[in-house]
Amino acid sequence: MRTATEIARDYIALWNKTDAGTRRALLAASWTEDATYADPMMKGVGHGEIDALIAGVQERFPEFRFSLRGTPDGYDDVARFSWALGPEGGEAVVKGTDIVRCREGRIASVTGFLDQVPPTA
Amino acid sequence: MRTATEIARDYIALWNKTDAGTRRALLAASWTEDATYADPMMKGVGHGEIDALIAGVQERFPEFRFSLRGTPDGYDDVARFSWALGPEGGEAVVKGTDIVRCREGRIASVTGFLDQVPPTA
Repeated sequence: MRTATEIARDYIALWNKTDAGTRRALLAASWTEDATYADPMMKGVGHGEIDALIAGVQERFPEFRFSLRGTPDGYDDVARFSWALGPEGGEAVVKGTDIVRCREGRIASVTGFLDQVPPTA
Repeated sequence: MRTATEIARDYIALWNKTDAGTRRALLAASWTEDATYADPMMKGVGHGEIDALIAGVQERFPEFRFSLRGTPDGYDDVARFSWALGPEGGEAVVKGTDIVRCREGRIASVTGFLDQVPPTA
């Protein structure tokens, strides 16, 4: 049983991995094959779709990195953690909180929420 | 489709209802029969068990009331909102955030997290 902190750390690392092969290997190792991802802006099912979502965010924000905010918590098969996205060492542009549910030690679903988004121009 | 704010408002009202008949009527109207509730301290499935959880909290904290903190948000069939529990008009003793998933307009699952708990004596 992985802790909420371990799940969060691996999750953030995945979103920062720009090498497609490494991303797919991490997804295969720690996400179920039918894993679902949803947030207010996008959704996907399975390793291929979720990998494409991650690649899309990286392409859109090539200079940005994800980082963990605060302390992850969780119980049973569920974990909660908050993250920030912004230039390395700079102020976060987007902040969110994700709820991750695991099945047999792998991530089975992610339900994401946005805590801060850039003001619209 | 009910908004996150409507779902949160009804949910908080349910937790504050001390009349058992009213609680059961609210559960029947706006929660699915197989609805699940889980937080770090307790869990239940179905109207009967969830009603018992609510009654138990009310018995343990008879002078306390639940109130909404911040602004609920959500998308698709999921809503997120934060709450406080404490004496009416006084400082909150416990704070939490709940993730509610609906099915056909009724609450199908609640995944609760605690944001603040009393310091242990």
